[in-house]
Amino acid sequence: MTSRGKFITLEGGEGVGKSTNLRFIQDYLTAQGIELIVTREPGGTDLGEAIRQLLLDVDNHGMHADTELLLVFAARAEHVHRKILPALSQGHWVLSDRFIDASFAYQGGGRGLGPERVDALARFVLEDFQPDLTLLLDADVDVGMSRVAQRGEKDRFENEQTVFFDAVRQAYAERAENDPTRIKRVNAMQPLPAVQAEIQSLLDALLHDDGR
Amino acid sequence: MTSRGKFITLEGGEGVGKSTNLRFIQDYLTAQGIELIVTREPGGTDLGEAIRQLLLDVDNHGMHADTELLLVFAARAEHVHRKILPALSQGHWVLSDRFIDASFAYQGGGRGLGPERVDALARFVLEDFQPDLTLLLDADVDVGMSRVAQRGEKDRFENEQTVFFDAVRQAYAERAENDPTRIKRVNAMQPLPAVQAEIQSLLDALLHDDGR
Repeated sequence: MTSRGKFITLEGGEGVGKSTNLRFIQDYLTAQGIELIVTREPGGTDLGEAIRQLLLDVDNHGMHADTELLLVFAARAEHVHRKILPALSQGHWVLSDRFIDASFAYQGGGRGLGPERVDALARFVLEDFQPDLTLLLDADVDVGMSRVAQRGEKDRFENEQTVFFDAVRQAYAERAENDPTRIKRVNAMQPLPAVQAEIQSLLDALLHDDGR
Repeated sequence: MTSRGKFITLEGGEGVGKSTNLRFIQDYLTAQGIELIVTREPGGTDLGEAIRQLLLDVDNHGMHADTELLLVFAARAEHVHRKILPALSQGHWVLSDRFIDASFAYQGGGRGLGPERVDALARFVLEDFQPDLTLLLDADVDVGMSRVAQRGEKDRFENEQTVFFDAVRQAYAERAENDPTRIKRVNAMQPLPAVQAEIQSLLDALLHDDGR
């Protein structure tokens, strides 16, 4: 009988090094013999990626915050039911670039909807499903924004101002404080080897927890 | 000071004559001097129409029912906040081809999600906002389906089978039974002049109610 896989999410604001560390996690787990599916939110399915385009499109700059939240959760419902849960039940591990905590951070914090409104949809879509481990990369907002400034064309979120990203960071921090067992905050302003040593040790704990 | 406009919705399954009667209502109210905005769901805004495309696209045939419901409500949040409420507050009347009752009928009934799940999102998005008058065009499912069969290419909903449309009709009927003051059921199997006489009398009551 196949045991259920583990679900890991990587979270953090703009420019905290998610892409680099996503590849590090992928390489490390694959080297441990884990069959890993790497995915992202919003997106992860064909329909979810189409929804992602609507969310990131700068032409949709006037989108109401409720609309944004509902679109994020529409993509998430598809992602969970059509990709994540089937993969986990087949014994694969799943690594997602952003998941539920991003909604509390971006829509609950950044857009100012507050945690209760996000939680209402979280309960609607996820019931009691949640990641086994969430790695929250944390950096000062000006550090992240200066990295993003070096990128080319910005999307609808990257166009936001410091006050938005301050609220995102604060909401992420509150999530981590309220659920320290699942959400591990990693100081992303350390030199990369130190960041990755910390991530590796958290992954080792999860691997050990799995009885491997 | 401008008084708030009235919000009328037209509901019903496939092939019950919504398009014909929508034009009748539009012409009748315009002739009474009403400044009327005609809109539709899912859709009604640029973003909402993009979401409509995702919902109707036959390539999205495997869409999870929760995803469908969340997309419908995402489009609705945009529609209400960016188009309907602003128009009503300017004193315009708004006529929408489908609205909240369609979610109870199609997703709650047709997709089998049940009224409670739809109601959770209805409360989330609409709070206590609802139409002043809802006209529900009702016809036997085989009558509606035979009309739809004469159309060209079908969308993702029109491709559904009798059992789906039976559940849609039943859920619409339950909505009307539970809210007879707002929702007026019109027998769409009558000859068109009889249908429109009934609609006209319901519109007259609303116009009278407005003090005109």
